[in-house]
Amino acid sequence: MADRPVLGVLGGGQLGRMLALAAYPLDIETRLFDPAPDACGGQVASLTSAGWDDLDAVRRWAERCDAVTYEFENVPEAVARAVMEVAPLRPGVEALVTAQDRVLERELFARCGIATPRWVKADSAQELAAAVDGFPLPAIVKARRGGYDGKGQGGIASVDDAARVFAELGSVPVIVDERVAFDREVSVVAARSGMAIAAYPAVVNAHHAGILVRTDAAAGLVPGVAGMRAMERVAAALDYCGVLAVEFFDVGGALLANEFAPRVHNTGHWTMDGAATGQFEQHVRAVMGLPLGAAEPVHASVMVNLIGGVPTRAVLAACGGRVHLYGKSMKPGRKVGHVTFVGAGDAAGTLLGGNRYSEA
Amino acid sequence: MADRPVLGVLGGGQLGRMLALAAYPLDIETRLFDPAPDACGGQVASLTSAGWDDLDAVRRWAERCDAVTYEFENVPEAVARAVMEVAPLRPGVEALVTAQDRVLERELFARCGIATPRWVKADSAQELAAAVDGFPLPAIVKARRGGYDGKGQGGIASVDDAARVFAELGSVPVIVDERVAFDREVSVVAARSGMAIAAYPAVVNAHHAGILVRTDAAAGLVPGVAGMRAMERVAAALDYCGVLAVEFFDVGGALLANEFAPRVHNTGHWTMDGAATGQFEQHVRAVMGLPLGAAEPVHASVMVNLIGGVPTRAVLAACGGRVHLYGKSMKPGRKVGHVTFVGAGDAAGTLLGGNRYSEA
Repeated sequence: MADRPVLGVLGGGQLGRMLALAAYPLDIETRLFDPAPDACGGQVASLTSAGWDDLDAVRRWAERCDAVTYEFENVPEAVARAVMEVAPLRPGVEALVTAQDRVLERELFARCGIATPRWVKADSAQELAAAVDGFPLPAIVKARRGGYDGKGQGGIASVDDAARVFAELGSVPVIVDERVAFDREVSVVAARSGMAIAAYPAVVNAHHAGILVRTDAAAGLVPGVAGMRAMERVAAALDYCGVLAVEFFDVGGALLANEFAPRVHNTGHWTMDGAATGQFEQHVRAVMGLPLGAAEPVHASVMVNLIGGVPTRAVLAACGGRVHLYGKSMKPGRKVGHVTFVGAGDAAGTLLGGNRYSEA
Repeated sequence: MADRPVLGVLGGGQLGRMLALAAYPLDIETRLFDPAPDACGGQVASLTSAGWDDLDAVRRWAERCDAVTYEFENVPEAVARAVMEVAPLRPGVEALVTAQDRVLERELFARCGIATPRWVKADSAQELAAAVDGFPLPAIVKARRGGYDGKGQGGIASVDDAARVFAELGSVPVIVDERVAFDREVSVVAARSGMAIAAYPAVVNAHHAGILVRTDAAAGLVPGVAGMRAMERVAAALDYCGVLAVEFFDVGGALLANEFAPRVHNTGHWTMDGAATGQFEQHVRAVMGLPLGAAEPVHASVMVNLIGGVPTRAVLAACGGRVHLYGKSMKPGRKVGHVTFVGAGDAAGTLLGGNRYSEA
């Protein structure tokens, strides 16, 4: 096709890589931007590498894009605004900025009438000490900004810990978060384009050391309706365009929203193999102004992350699942691939249970 | 992964493109070789462009590959042999050479005890005239070498046509082929790796003007067992590695083998969306020495080719099928994409029936 549209993605990691791979069959070219010249997305699509502070490079790159999205929520706001000078940014900057700050995020949930764990903010060690006075302890202290995969978090058991914990987190603004005795962790992933919204069923997630290890997408298991309603409110409040994920704690069937991600999400990876349209293609469609595809699940699916290492390709190829490697070098705790088992019995359990690949 | 294997593909068209896209999730790099510098596979993977007669360029390119395959059967034998000096060629040169010559192909079928339409060869106009004397007319005359998508063929109704038809086909060696009153056209696509073989169910194909327009993959519709047995014999006779397709005429439930293709095949495209493992991934697995995936169909699927033109992306995106565009410029009769409808009722019929996109 003569006029091949160009999708720009801020960030060139595995999510950018899978966006590019989903865009090719729609004859859409993807261009990635990432400060790391060896970002794994560069193996499958063109990659421009410059620092996040090089806003001229950002603008030059974005000028060649018909629309720009981001694959992680810690893209600096200045970069997003530089993009917006020359190309549409989808989802918009408000979604990005809100997701970057746990206080803004929780305030958004509150505005939308969505229940969350009890929380309070603190900008200093003194404020932290005051905040935990009377707060149910032990609690979790999280940096307001910059955390991911369990990083930037610590526990606090008494007021006396406040100074130490605040210092350990880098003496940055934090929130204190109620430690919820949840039955399970649940997420809802959906795509929104214009007023249209297509939600995947809610899924159940398992984390280890703060990192997602497994998503179980078996429809009907979870209180999905409440999760979808919450997701819809967040999407509407942000006038959202693209794929959105909201994570919840399920406490006796009641959902407490923990956080949202304004992007394709690890807990939606199963949709590549288990739903009528995968989340990466949905995001491409939404960002590029195309109608959404059907989101219904077509298989009962279980997704297992490969963390820190992988078996040989021969073992993986024989495991009975759909294999997705990211082309990344191995490093403890790093997500280097995932496998989705569709319509499977216990194959996922075999790969997950007691094997070293999911446990760094 | 530190040691990323490299798959070389001779030919950089849509089949090479889809091989590369299937290789990425296995963390396998694909390098394409095609004389056309704008071959559409070059949009998704590295493309080396040089003439088929530049055997030094072929060797230099192949040296950087762990294994080399081909995406079309008219790769010159000299190119295949140049590759073999420096890298394994899979499938092997015998499969390639046999598929290039309708006489060798039919002789292979005969050696394997596989029924075909009645045929006879002719190397000159005189031989052609002699050959059709007593042959059931009208018949089809096909160039022994170089034909595809119905090209290189003509009809012959009487001995008097021999000189004209022979000249029209370029005065090259031909075969005369019985015009079979078939009920339908059927193909079997399978992957073989070592002694392991994984066959997809036989499918029913519809052609228009010599070009495949539609594949119907609904298990049980066709006399699949006979087709699979024939496919197995061909694969064994060629000590085959990779995906192989055999095309048949179904005449009252009896299959007559017409031709085979030593490569991924248009009538196997439905497997990308409708089978547990798609044919492109299977071919990558076989050629790279990985175990084959499961071949069972997971959806009833119908594949429709987009020929000569496509609707807008917005219309395609809303059609309810899985869209695969190839990034090719539009040209009458050219395959520019395909759409697979899975678990569908009559959506495929709607896209195919009476629309201009499948009919050039």
